[in-house]
Amino acid sequence: MFAFRILRGISFRTLSPYNYTKAAAILAISGTGLYYHYRDKNLTKIIQNSPLKKEDGILQFSSSYPKDDSIPKIVAETSTTPLRIRMERFIKNLQESIVKEIETIDGKKFLIDKWERTQGGGGISCILQNGNVFEKAGVNISVVHGDLPEPALQQMKSRQKDIDSSKGPFPFYALGISIVMHPHNPHAPTIHLNYRYFEVDTGSSKLWWFGGGSDLTPSYLYEEDAIHFHKTLKDACDKHDPTYYPKFKKWCDDYFFLKHRDETRGVGGIFFDDLDDKSEEEIFAFVKQCGLSFLPSYIPLIKRRMNTKFTENEKSWQQLRRGRYVEFNLIWDRGTKFGLQTPGARIESIFMSLPLTARWEYKHNPIENSREDELLKILKHPRDWV
Amino acid sequence: MFAFRILRGISFRTLSPYNYTKAAAILAISGTGLYYHYRDKNLTKIIQNSPLKKEDGILQFSSSYPKDDSIPKIVAETSTTPLRIRMERFIKNLQESIVKEIETIDGKKFLIDKWERTQGGGGISCILQNGNVFEKAGVNISVVHGDLPEPALQQMKSRQKDIDSSKGPFPFYALGISIVMHPHNPHAPTIHLNYRYFEVDTGSSKLWWFGGGSDLTPSYLYEEDAIHFHKTLKDACDKHDPTYYPKFKKWCDDYFFLKHRDETRGVGGIFFDDLDDKSEEEIFAFVKQCGLSFLPSYIPLIKRRMNTKFTENEKSWQQLRRGRYVEFNLIWDRGTKFGLQTPGARIESIFMSLPLTARWEYKHNPIENSREDELLKILKHPRDWV
Repeated sequence: MFAFRILRGISFRTLSPYNYTKAAAILAISGTGLYYHYRDKNLTKIIQNSPLKKEDGILQFSSSYPKDDSIPKIVAETSTTPLRIRMERFIKNLQESIVKEIETIDGKKFLIDKWERTQGGGGISCILQNGNVFEKAGVNISVVHGDLPEPALQQMKSRQKDIDSSKGPFPFYALGISIVMHPHNPHAPTIHLNYRYFEVDTGSSKLWWFGGGSDLTPSYLYEEDAIHFHKTLKDACDKHDPTYYPKFKKWCDDYFFLKHRDETRGVGGIFFDDLDDKSEEEIFAFVKQCGLSFLPSYIPLIKRRMNTKFTENEKSWQQLRRGRYVEFNLIWDRGTKFGLQTPGARIESIFMSLPLTARWEYKHNPIENSREDELLKILKHPRDWV
Repeated sequence: MFAFRILRGISFRTLSPYNYTKAAAILAISGTGLYYHYRDKNLTKIIQNSPLKKEDGILQFSSSYPKDDSIPKIVAETSTTPLRIRMERFIKNLQESIVKEIETIDGKKFLIDKWERTQGGGGISCILQNGNVFEKAGVNISVVHGDLPEPALQQMKSRQKDIDSSKGPFPFYALGISIVMHPHNPHAPTIHLNYRYFEVDTGSSKLWWFGGGSDLTPSYLYEEDAIHFHKTLKDACDKHDPTYYPKFKKWCDDYFFLKHRDETRGVGGIFFDDLDDKSEEEIFAFVKQCGLSFLPSYIPLIKRRMNTKFTENEKSWQQLRRGRYVEFNLIWDRGTKFGLQTPGARIESIFMSLPLTARWEYKHNPIENSREDELLKILKHPRDWV
């Protein structure tokens, strides 16, 4: 989302084709969905099921992926290793470990799309569709770099960032991991995660910030699931700053909000953007903690609910809730909206966050005090779970 | 859409609650979908299955509706009868005749929601859901009036309309009919229609214009269906102006375009806005002709395709195309976007245009030269059908 903020207010009509591409490259790290892909089909290529070429320290992916020993390895690194390199290794290892764990649960393999961006960087999209447990699951990473375009620089200046734009263009790096998982079972919740890092070298200084979060979207509320999810995130936050969880929990409720329905997308989680209030080492440590909390926050829930018996009515209610998910992503999510305005956007990556199926009924109103009604009440009045 | 044009560029943050409501009232007649409803739940009420109260010549609906003799009656009226009254009678009769005909085909009755708007006017929404032939069908009319808010006046001035905004507020009237029908059978096309009339009395003069159109969205292309549909619309246009069909056909292809997919929503039809290039009597006659062309343009197609045998794969392809319909309506349709930003909007009416069910698959690509591929080619390169 920070990239959206950098660039918002810039009319695309005023951008040259050159700037389109640049803006799009930055965009690749924006939003809350799965936008970590190239934005100009003429400048990039998909290299499906083959290793990416090594390029200047960026995207040095292993030659066979996923690896057999794909346990996350947050190895000790010297403080002289640039943070962006360590962030890249982190998100790559995290992607591997999550893909492996989800494959174990589902029993079906992810499709792996690797791609590179001629202007610099690339990414890996892992998609599991029509699985045994998951209707659709995506685990994407992207690492892009290039020169920050003038309009983006101007926007950063207006955000009180210390930049002399006359001395640009400046090199930037944008890295992120993005996850959405929609299970078949209406009693198992959908989960979304996104963590991203951005830096720009202005010559005299390096500006950087982190953004991200994770949130849970159940069709049927299980209080113990919401509590477990929030508690896992709160524990991760509390290890780094006791003010983070309450602040980011509220931010999440505010961001994942369907104004036209007057309801939140789900039971929330955490969300933050433009985070640079501590040293980058400290915030990187916090972001790693959050990323590593994904499996502990979600796996117990999916294992608990994936085989729950359900009725046709419950499946139909899940489909209506999927409709709401589509509404949020297409109408309100700033990253998606921005991405779709961008010529050459890789639509498949943007829309990977959409469920396989969704439903809209005219004037569907749950029976009062039913489980469906209970969920709606929570979505209209977000609760404190821990 | 004209109302969108009037109001676009006005930040909603700068509108007072008073102006919100006024803007929303005007919006009620905007867009290409089903936006003919009240916008402030505090100022209106639904009167389900009961007649609307008579009010100043507006919404003098019959006391039992639909009537038994609901054949459209475009009765001769004196030239002294205000056009807005004649337009209202026209859209009401048209709604009745279409509802009756569709009920005959489907075998299931429409749900009828009547509503009134305290500030002036009201409407009737007729919805058929989970029918025998139609997954979802809606036939809505609305007739609203009130005072045109200052921001709308300013926007009209900027559109070279002759208005001295210092002398406002001025009374306005906004009337329209809006239809969307999604059949179950993947071989039967979705249809959309919308015709609207707007007028404002500035004291010294009366400004007015018409907008509307109709377009067809098949999942499987039957050339004879597209030709029949376009030919019916062209015949209606040609009776009034030989330049209308080619101009409005292109406008339709341009408007119902998913930029992010680089494809049109369907095989098009006609679309126009801000039409005031002839006398209002002449354009009203043209709009009536278009409205009366709805049944002849669509009934032969639905009768021909509603019982066509289909495979599971064909149903799945239809669901993917329904996903595209959702994408257009939620992302690109200006009326929908504007409506959703409006506090108190009647979401059920706006979203009545959405299909009952939709589907998104990662990287779905039809087999080359298959019927699915054939449709995509047409959507990427709109054809002249007549």
